[in-house]
Amino acid sequence: MALEEALARIDLQLPRFVSQLKEFVRIPSISTGDDPAAAAEVARAAAFLVEDLTRCGLTARTVQATVDSNPLVLAHPTALHPDRPTVLVYGHYDVQGVEPSAWHHDPFAAVEEDGHLIGRGASDDKGQLWAHLKAAETVLAVEGELPVNPVFLLEGEEECGSRGLARFLADGGLKPFGRILCTVISDTGMHGPGRPSLTLGLRGIVFTRMTVHGPTQDLHSGLFGGLVPNPNHLLVRALAALTDPAGRVLVPGFYAEVRTPSARERALYQALEGSAADLLAGLGVEPLAGEEGFSLLERRWIRPSLDVHCLAGGSPRTVVPAQASATLSCRLVPDQRPERIQAGLEEFLRAQVPRSARVEFGPSHTAAPYTLDLDHPLVEPARRALETGFGRKPVLVREGGSIPIAGDLASSTGAPVLLVGFGQLTDNWHGPNEHFSLADFHAGVRTAAALLYQLAETGRS
Amino acid sequence: MALEEALARIDLQLPRFVSQLKEFVRIPSISTGDDPAAAAEVARAAAFLVEDLTRCGLTARTVQATVDSNPLVLAHPTALHPDRPTVLVYGHYDVQGVEPSAWHHDPFAAVEEDGHLIGRGASDDKGQLWAHLKAAETVLAVEGELPVNPVFLLEGEEECGSRGLARFLADGGLKPFGRILCTVISDTGMHGPGRPSLTLGLRGIVFTRMTVHGPTQDLHSGLFGGLVPNPNHLLVRALAALTDPAGRVLVPGFYAEVRTPSARERALYQALEGSAADLLAGLGVEPLAGEEGFSLLERRWIRPSLDVHCLAGGSPRTVVPAQASATLSCRLVPDQRPERIQAGLEEFLRAQVPRSARVEFGPSHTAAPYTLDLDHPLVEPARRALETGFGRKPVLVREGGSIPIAGDLASSTGAPVLLVGFGQLTDNWHGPNEHFSLADFHAGVRTAAALLYQLAETGRS
Repeated sequence: MALEEALARIDLQLPRFVSQLKEFVRIPSISTGDDPAAAAEVARAAAFLVEDLTRCGLTARTVQATVDSNPLVLAHPTALHPDRPTVLVYGHYDVQGVEPSAWHHDPFAAVEEDGHLIGRGASDDKGQLWAHLKAAETVLAVEGELPVNPVFLLEGEEECGSRGLARFLADGGLKPFGRILCTVISDTGMHGPGRPSLTLGLRGIVFTRMTVHGPTQDLHSGLFGGLVPNPNHLLVRALAALTDPAGRVLVPGFYAEVRTPSARERALYQALEGSAADLLAGLGVEPLAGEEGFSLLERRWIRPSLDVHCLAGGSPRTVVPAQASATLSCRLVPDQRPERIQAGLEEFLRAQVPRSARVEFGPSHTAAPYTLDLDHPLVEPARRALETGFGRKPVLVREGGSIPIAGDLASSTGAPVLLVGFGQLTDNWHGPNEHFSLADFHAGVRTAAALLYQLAETGRS
Repeated sequence: MALEEALARIDLQLPRFVSQLKEFVRIPSISTGDDPAAAAEVARAAAFLVEDLTRCGLTARTVQATVDSNPLVLAHPTALHPDRPTVLVYGHYDVQGVEPSAWHHDPFAAVEEDGHLIGRGASDDKGQLWAHLKAAETVLAVEGELPVNPVFLLEGEEECGSRGLARFLADGGLKPFGRILCTVISDTGMHGPGRPSLTLGLRGIVFTRMTVHGPTQDLHSGLFGGLVPNPNHLLVRALAALTDPAGRVLVPGFYAEVRTPSARERALYQALEGSAADLLAGLGVEPLAGEEGFSLLERRWIRPSLDVHCLAGGSPRTVVPAQASATLSCRLVPDQRPERIQAGLEEFLRAQVPRSARVEFGPSHTAAPYTLDLDHPLVEPARRALETGFGRKPVLVREGGSIPIAGDLASSTGAPVLLVGFGQLTDNWHGPNEHFSLADFHAGVRTAAALLYQLAETGRS
């Protein structure tokens, strides 16, 4: 059988795949800074992908979605087979910046140690997307064709807002590919080592900054303290009103549209619940916070939350400051609508401050939450592919974070997004010493290959 | 009469005094930064003073109070006259740092424009202390001796905490001078142009930083939002509890020891009250804040206040931050005791935060409020000297700010402090384009000369 042959070839070819991945990780394609040299590296990473995809036998090219965006890499079979489903595979080749002093190795040396590849982007997301490329390459080598029409859409701006990709989608860049069965994204984590996972949901986000203006310039507090409204005081009073001590959000209507998952889905998550003690270990907090009546994983996955991230007001001097500001965000769950939550949040905060004070909001950004129904017909094929890849039955999970582009891809394609992550939450994405288990990479390539066959079968039926 | 002769000579010599003051202002004796070059300039300013005081005929030297403090300048007649009162004259030759881009002229060029000397330190405090030096020089030139024993004590660390001077006082540095009649300080502002002022009180201060600790490192809010106590939330809730919307402090006992001045004193201040509209102009706030039942000047002078100056928590990223902190201070009035207010403040803030969260206070500093009784026998001589100097009856005022060393000098000498400021609140101390009216300087030298005679008379009687 073709899949068996492909899997056997993957096992044999793994050292070559890893060696290529190291080359890929060695390109410092940082998209988050403003070093002009980084732009050349971003372009080099895109060219590296185009070359590899072309060598596999696909038609590959870069697409410049806007004048100043990093190139998208688009690749697909030269002619799409009309009887086979089309599957979009998304990934990103850009990486976060680094603080080299905090790393044990050069972050772009791609050192292998204890079965892990260490380097910026090793797990987020170069290693994960590489699994899909190598799976397609293998199946093409074995069969001379692919059981589905894959369309690889790999961006270079995931870490800095995905502007180019958003424009590409809005401009109908996927139209030429017709009906799309689903989008596959490997840019999430597994529930733990050896726990292959299908992620059924992502939280959305409403992020904003609130600024309260006071006097036109900082005023000496000896002269004006007690005479002039202090914007720090107005800000902290407004922020303090947002949540109760348990962390429940007090903005009216905040929970009105929260959908509680079925008892069956909650039971699945309940079975994954670890001990609070394990979660506490290493966090340095005691006790945990959060809403009564919900387990820790439920607080992370199916309940919305609100956090003030940054307080920035005033001056180290003894002044009544000219302004005070804070950034904050809400993580959203279905069926909360970001624009509605944002409006309610800002209206509530505004109402806490006297009308005489000038208040501003922004810059803001939002992303809708995403979920895949437990009974969606693509859940089973994805689970089977993960089981083939990892040799163990996968678990169904959600993710507390947000992948803003997931919602955009779902609405642009009108098709579900399958989140099959090969990373671990402990891979240190965005932090120092990012790493990726080569065993997870191996199982990831196998899963990606199996998924091509599973989706071919489901898409035809 | 000797004073008349001295005043006439001051009027004639003014251009020379101004020219010397410019030289003094051109020395960038900044004490607030950590530029090693600044230390040499601080030493040069001290040497400049020693040289000038020696030329006048006084015994002058620098005193190194601690190994690493900027030198004190100490000067006095070679032998103190046993029948004449000893008067301490305090000033400081160090200045705040500058942001040259915000200045219209080089801050150390000592440019004269429209009757003002422009430069860092022109008003705070080089110009004001220079008035006393030139008064003593003039009287010595006219009479060959001085009607009081002046002891000049000029420090180089007023802008950075006065550590050397505090040590000098604690070590009994003033003991050799015997009984001191009073300390004269010209380091405050007048009630307005042409409104010579004797300042009867300074507010004290309790300054501290509150830090709330959370997780051992910043945690991704997608993973931990709603699970882990957010130190920003704990901090804003505590700070919001400090004041009511009118600015009244809610810390129990905060007002317990506030002494309300006599009806007679309040009536004096009432007569000085400007319009709220004038105060508002240019501040950019509408309306003013503050305690009901107290006029604007009373809120500034005789009522305590509390201001949060700086909020600093978290990260611009979407995290639950590892810590959050705020600096805040209370301005104190008699008879509030700084250590008691500080203890009450910290206890109150601590009580707002769950016991499980780690809270720290500090670094902190405090200064006691200072007042001179309206009926103190030195009030009249000081008023007469100001009237002689400015040609107009002075007003009695207080100051909303703090001069921490004033309380230390009062307690070390056991004698009152006369605050005769020659600056204007609009001179832009600590800000760009600091300036000093040369008319105020002229009147200041005349006042300082007259004060020597007035204090001689009072001290003898």
